[in-house]
Amino acid sequence: MAGDKKLVEQITSMDVDFAQWYTDICKKADLIDYSSVKGCMIIRPYGYAIWENIQKNLDSRFKALGHENVYMPMFIPESLLNKEKDHVEGFAPEVAWVTHGGSEKLTERLCVRPTSETLFCEHYANIIRSYRDLPKLYNQWCSVVRWEKTTRPFLRSREFLWQEGHTMHATAEEARAETVQMLNVYADFHEEDLAIPVIKGAKTPSDKFAGAEDTYAIEALMHDGKALQAGTSHYFGDGFAKAFDITYTDKDNKLVHPFQTSWGVTTRMIGGIIMTHGDDNGLVLPPAVAPIQVVVIPVAAHKPGVIEAATELANRLKGDYRVKLDDSDNSPGWKFAEYEMKGVPLRIELGPRDIEAGQCVIVTRHNLEKTVVKLDELEAAVKAKLQEVRDGMYAKALANREKRTYDCKTIDEIIEKLAANGDGFVRAMWCGDPECEDKVKEMTGVGSRCVPLEQEHISDVCVCCGKPAKQLVYWGKAY
Amino acid sequence: MAGDKKLVEQITSMDVDFAQWYTDICKKADLIDYSSVKGCMIIRPYGYAIWENIQKNLDSRFKALGHENVYMPMFIPESLLNKEKDHVEGFAPEVAWVTHGGSEKLTERLCVRPTSETLFCEHYANIIRSYRDLPKLYNQWCSVVRWEKTTRPFLRSREFLWQEGHTMHATAEEARAETVQMLNVYADFHEEDLAIPVIKGAKTPSDKFAGAEDTYAIEALMHDGKALQAGTSHYFGDGFAKAFDITYTDKDNKLVHPFQTSWGVTTRMIGGIIMTHGDDNGLVLPPAVAPIQVVVIPVAAHKPGVIEAATELANRLKGDYRVKLDDSDNSPGWKFAEYEMKGVPLRIELGPRDIEAGQCVIVTRHNLEKTVVKLDELEAAVKAKLQEVRDGMYAKALANREKRTYDCKTIDEIIEKLAANGDGFVRAMWCGDPECEDKVKEMTGVGSRCVPLEQEHISDVCVCCGKPAKQLVYWGKAY
Repeated sequence: MAGDKKLVEQITSMDVDFAQWYTDICKKADLIDYSSVKGCMIIRPYGYAIWENIQKNLDSRFKALGHENVYMPMFIPESLLNKEKDHVEGFAPEVAWVTHGGSEKLTERLCVRPTSETLFCEHYANIIRSYRDLPKLYNQWCSVVRWEKTTRPFLRSREFLWQEGHTMHATAEEARAETVQMLNVYADFHEEDLAIPVIKGAKTPSDKFAGAEDTYAIEALMHDGKALQAGTSHYFGDGFAKAFDITYTDKDNKLVHPFQTSWGVTTRMIGGIIMTHGDDNGLVLPPAVAPIQVVVIPVAAHKPGVIEAATELANRLKGDYRVKLDDSDNSPGWKFAEYEMKGVPLRIELGPRDIEAGQCVIVTRHNLEKTVVKLDELEAAVKAKLQEVRDGMYAKALANREKRTYDCKTIDEIIEKLAANGDGFVRAMWCGDPECEDKVKEMTGVGSRCVPLEQEHISDVCVCCGKPAKQLVYWGKAY
Repeated sequence: MAGDKKLVEQITSMDVDFAQWYTDICKKADLIDYSSVKGCMIIRPYGYAIWENIQKNLDSRFKALGHENVYMPMFIPESLLNKEKDHVEGFAPEVAWVTHGGSEKLTERLCVRPTSETLFCEHYANIIRSYRDLPKLYNQWCSVVRWEKTTRPFLRSREFLWQEGHTMHATAEEARAETVQMLNVYADFHEEDLAIPVIKGAKTPSDKFAGAEDTYAIEALMHDGKALQAGTSHYFGDGFAKAFDITYTDKDNKLVHPFQTSWGVTTRMIGGIIMTHGDDNGLVLPPAVAPIQVVVIPVAAHKPGVIEAATELANRLKGDYRVKLDDSDNSPGWKFAEYEMKGVPLRIELGPRDIEAGQCVIVTRHNLEKTVVKLDELEAAVKAKLQEVRDGMYAKALANREKRTYDCKTIDEIIEKLAANGDGFVRAMWCGDPECEDKVKEMTGVGSRCVPLEQEHISDVCVCCGKPAKQLVYWGKAY
């Protein structure tokens, strides 16, 4: 049999080549595969199950806040995309164009949606009449296409899966509150459920979404010190509403424009999970979204009673957790490596001696620590251990971010600290001038990531020009 | 206030103009809207919620049978689509072609997937090596595009939502069993959960899926006597496996081809629900997929205690059912019409006299019958009533099908019965010759729908040529 067994293949060490380590994990943990469709990925069952858990979690958060799901066409006629000037300038260079249906040339090109503001606006113009129709809190789960030149699984691909919320409100205040509320939903989901600490902030004007008045983002720091924009929330004011002639009759019977937001997160989050938590043994998954939360592995399974006891143990947990019993004929050692590669949060080992002693061994994936647990305390122990895993993962990620966050007052200090300590978040004051923003990037390699909502005053002057500083900015190299 | 209220708009009577009635329901029940994207539809929150309930139900059925969800790219390179001859001939005339990415012309055209056999096969060629890798039981939920000339919401649109299962098996027997198993899943879902009786059968050779050896379908009869193909399941043999060079090492260490199936249902099912169960008051939804299963409407809501009692009643049901309390200031009559239009299975009315008498009134949507129910028997009554609705809807649909099913032995009999009784299923024997199949359609207007799995012998000779008959066939006009 041994010859038939799938070997747990070696992956590149993350310290040797982080990019190769990342790609290895994507492949070896069975998350993705490539195809002849350049720049697109196949999301395999194990990867897709993570996405399904993310969807379920976020979808119920959205619905609890009153949002409703809809489905818009995947195509946008060129004339519709062209309606909002900034928007089309931002997206036209990176869309895929459908020019033929069957053997016939279309009279008007259709782009495959890169995002759906234009479609939602056209629809809203149809269905919003009175203040009684507001707010409209719509969301859709779908795939979108952006014709990227260089692609990487989850992080940047020509097609990706996402959700896009699009809402319309009677007042600017309400729309602004929605924008911030959804940013907070994303932040809370990342911190609580993905165990990824994030910085909530606003994008600088040069980095806003095409057509938005304000763009907010959550920024996470990956293990290698690079930043990942993990979710965005946009406030549009009434710009699109004016371009698409969306009006409603307010309580004073006046015809006015509503105010708009949009917000989205994507399969990119899976890339964020990999690069925040993974290690040289493979993936490390946060319990909330792990397809398998607990794997039960019988040891010396040929001995009488072992399989039966392992089955019973697994069955006790199945009502409350996603549990897998691996009673295949692979060796325990092979299985340990396999489920470490797949990032399963808890492994429970159970052998003849354990059974005799009325105990089992629980191993937590993120730190590979073993705990002996009494079988009659199993349920409580698993619950506590899963929380311990989430907390431990969060603490580890936070420690990495703190170690890699550098407060700097001068350009030289930025350059020195990055050189001495490696990539990370630079915190430095900014005067607000886009020229300084560009110059910092040019001279140090780190660009503005966001203007954090929680401001601190770490210096009086701009890190670049020395003029009075307006804001603290997080700077970093971005994925 | 009255002037602001949305009026429950009149819809065309189904007996006057069934097609217009259908379109009216789609719009007036807030299921869909149109956009500037020709031939595509916007699925609005109420319509999409039906789809979400369908998805949840089917997805758990699929998973219980061991299927796993994946996501494939939405594009298919032209050369990949061309790999299986029959398949490309079937689909090439109706696909949308992407020719440009941003401003650059692509070196190879990509079609937007009309179905994904080719992508799954390419992937399976990569990941199937040994008999230990089989079966592969994959499914995906996505949208597909077919460039139809004439379109109708849900029934035929250029883009639609669906699931496509694609499986690979070690033996032909296993693959055939999977094909039939999934047909049975679809049939059971339609009958039990959608309350739509279906005929399970095989398509005749001329009507098979492009590239399939056998195509099975479930066929339902709509209220107007036209047939709707509601789901299909295909057996491919090893045809695609050969074209895509998919091989595995069997237990005897020989390199052989696996056997394949695919199966799918689409948002078309929502059209089937509308046309099977709807009436002149609007939609009638089967409880299993209704976004709102119970609507609670307070009567004389301004009287003290009414709103409180209605809220309490709704809260008692909320844990077990999808419940809406409508305590808006619209009149009860307006609300009755509104939720009839939306097909809510149960309406509960509660007024001051009911409260005094410790009762409420339950109205079942499908027959508009009222029952007075003691408040302390509410939970049991709602449970029973929802079952009664499903059973009543099914019985009504079955009665319509039976009334409209005509056993015929000659072409003349077909013509006469259809003329006398209206459209419906014709059951007639067939010799198996495609020429007779065409001739029947030409002379009577009804085409072969399927060769039912449950065969009956109603005559010795072919309804068309008089030669010995091979099979009983269901004939009909199809949507």
